[in-house]
Amino acid sequence: MKISCSKSELLNGVNIALKAVPNRTTMNILECIMIIVENGSIKLISNDTEMGIETTIKGNITENGIIALDAKLFSDVIRKLPEGDISIEVKDDLTTTIKCMKLKFNLPGRSGDDFVMLPSVKKDESITISQFTLKEVIRQTIFSVSDNDSNKLMTGILFDIEDDKLKVVSLDGHRISIRNIGLRKQYNNRKLIIPGKTLGEISKILSGEVEKEVNIYYTDKHVLFEFDNTILVSRLIEGEYFQYNQMFSEKYDTKITINRKSFLESIERATLLAKEGDKKPVIIGIEDDAIEVRMNSTIGSLNEFIDVTKEGNNLQIGFNPKFLIDALRVIDDEEIKLYMMNAKAPCFIEDDEKKYTYIVLPVNFNQVR
Amino acid sequence: MKISCSKSELLNGVNIALKAVPNRTTMNILECIMIIVENGSIKLISNDTEMGIETTIKGNITENGIIALDAKLFSDVIRKLPEGDISIEVKDDLTTTIKCMKLKFNLPGRSGDDFVMLPSVKKDESITISQFTLKEVIRQTIFSVSDNDSNKLMTGILFDIEDDKLKVVSLDGHRISIRNIGLRKQYNNRKLIIPGKTLGEISKILSGEVEKEVNIYYTDKHVLFEFDNTILVSRLIEGEYFQYNQMFSEKYDTKITINRKSFLESIERATLLAKEGDKKPVIIGIEDDAIEVRMNSTIGSLNEFIDVTKEGNNLQIGFNPKFLIDALRVIDDEEIKLYMMNAKAPCFIEDDEKKYTYIVLPVNFNQVR
Repeated sequence: MKISCSKSELLNGVNIALKAVPNRTTMNILECIMIIVENGSIKLISNDTEMGIETTIKGNITENGIIALDAKLFSDVIRKLPEGDISIEVKDDLTTTIKCMKLKFNLPGRSGDDFVMLPSVKKDESITISQFTLKEVIRQTIFSVSDNDSNKLMTGILFDIEDDKLKVVSLDGHRISIRNIGLRKQYNNRKLIIPGKTLGEISKILSGEVEKEVNIYYTDKHVLFEFDNTILVSRLIEGEYFQYNQMFSEKYDTKITINRKSFLESIERATLLAKEGDKKPVIIGIEDDAIEVRMNSTIGSLNEFIDVTKEGNNLQIGFNPKFLIDALRVIDDEEIKLYMMNAKAPCFIEDDEKKYTYIVLPVNFNQVR
Repeated sequence: MKISCSKSELLNGVNIALKAVPNRTTMNILECIMIIVENGSIKLISNDTEMGIETTIKGNITENGIIALDAKLFSDVIRKLPEGDISIEVKDDLTTTIKCMKLKFNLPGRSGDDFVMLPSVKKDESITISQFTLKEVIRQTIFSVSDNDSNKLMTGILFDIEDDKLKVVSLDGHRISIRNIGLRKQYNNRKLIIPGKTLGEISKILSGEVEKEVNIYYTDKHVLFEFDNTILVSRLIEGEYFQYNQMFSEKYDTKITINRKSFLESIERATLLAKEGDKKPVIIGIEDDAIEVRMNSTIGSLNEFIDVTKEGNNLQIGFNPKFLIDALRVIDDEEIKLYMMNAKAPCFIEDDEKKYTYIVLPVNFNQVR
């Protein structure tokens, strides 16, 4: 193998491929990035067996070939090279020589015979959305994915395709995040449960530009994201997703309209008084024109009043502050609306167009101040 | 006690005082910041017994008083308050109420009777330098302070005042850093050994402006830094500092002039091939118009040529790459000069005016490539 390319092009490709290199693995070949040069293209490939990445970089090919290089070392070396043209040449003993200006690195390579190549995914069914939309919707839902493997379905995010709509849902037993996105055309109905980890990594790679698109292909077992010069393949989580819409109701007894930033900052202040691990609720006392945010712990107490517009009954209701904070941080609206029934029923944070719905279960609290 | 002040003023003061709050201590009163309001001033005080800080903030005083508040909680609370005016009021039971806009925090306070107040330091002898100079000289010498407490003298930085010159020196047994600074007037000769930790913290507080000054007062036991609205008092390290100038010599057999940045980056690349903890030397092969930077390890090899101007003999010499990197990073000159005798004698990196001298001991290496 013998190729040359610019440092920036190679570094960009390596940084993308790194996202699917596992931190720890029993198959240490997977700690490598494969470079495959054939059919006029230079591909960098990585795979942690749950998710795999293949990205194509621009460069000049003198000789085809395949080499596997330790991903961490290779990326460290490329990052530290001077700006300029880089040549990579593999000798018969798999020693890989990286030259740039007046310097030469020799790194040991491996054949990669035992590397797990990416599964091939049929490109029959797909949807197309912008990189911006995909990146945003991941940010707006990923925080309520469960990190507890005991319920596999909760570690995934549901992509529910229905006609010209995409509903993205995550839940962890205490809260539900829902985002609704309009698609540009009609699609066959289909539910995909994509691992949260896959979506977390993909959102780091996406440039997030509005004009750039992502094609999402899917089969029974796999999903394939195609964008820029990169494809990312992931397993899907199998099973029937939760019937979360059973919780929905158009009725409410208390509705408040509140400035999102003021509410968020007040709850963040309240968390200063909760010791780590100690599940002290923040209590929201809803009165006529204001709410009182209250926290009372062994560390100290906070009482803060925030002006609101209220419809319906007064209410005292307690929440895990983290769950409110997570939802409030990913909503962009200046004013938000909260719908509640009573101190034991879920609270809905929802906009009028239902572009988003965040549902948070309240927690019991001692009514005595 | 009852005071009011702006959030920014209070937060700035708290951030300064935090620098002398110990992370772990057997005397938990020292985890507090003391607020002392008397004689028309509001002072924040902290002390880890090695070093203490007193900083004065602007504000309105309604009632004098003293209170000790948990430093971490107090700083977290102040940081999270909305921008605006803050009032602090201490009740008879030491409960401290912090009000801002429509919110109220109640935090438990302590009397601070058992707090260790700052030692008083006589202001007989002092020097004055700019904040910029002090901050710079700390950065340029602190890296070669030893973090091993077994030789206390090596954990300090020598401030050697002689006539109108200040020499700042640190050493750890493998290398020596020396900076020479001109003072604006003549002073009595005096050697101070200031704990590296004290200087590290002070450099975080200094704004580093050229026009602002620092007065440094000293007695036999203590040093006091006075700048802006802050004083910082530290113990001195007692003892006789090392006779480091015995190593000096005007003779050399090899001298090279080299671009600092190219040399630094090359050695940084070489370290990629050294495993953590493994003391693999980088070898510098000095030829007529170039040096070769070489590293050869189980991980891989690097060979890089850098153009130099050379006087004297060719030489092969090995170094701990970290020691060269640390020195090269804090020199601002574009071109630097290295003076060497042989592969076993110290290497001097020195400018013509001797504003700085960095001495690095070489390490043995296997001459066979």
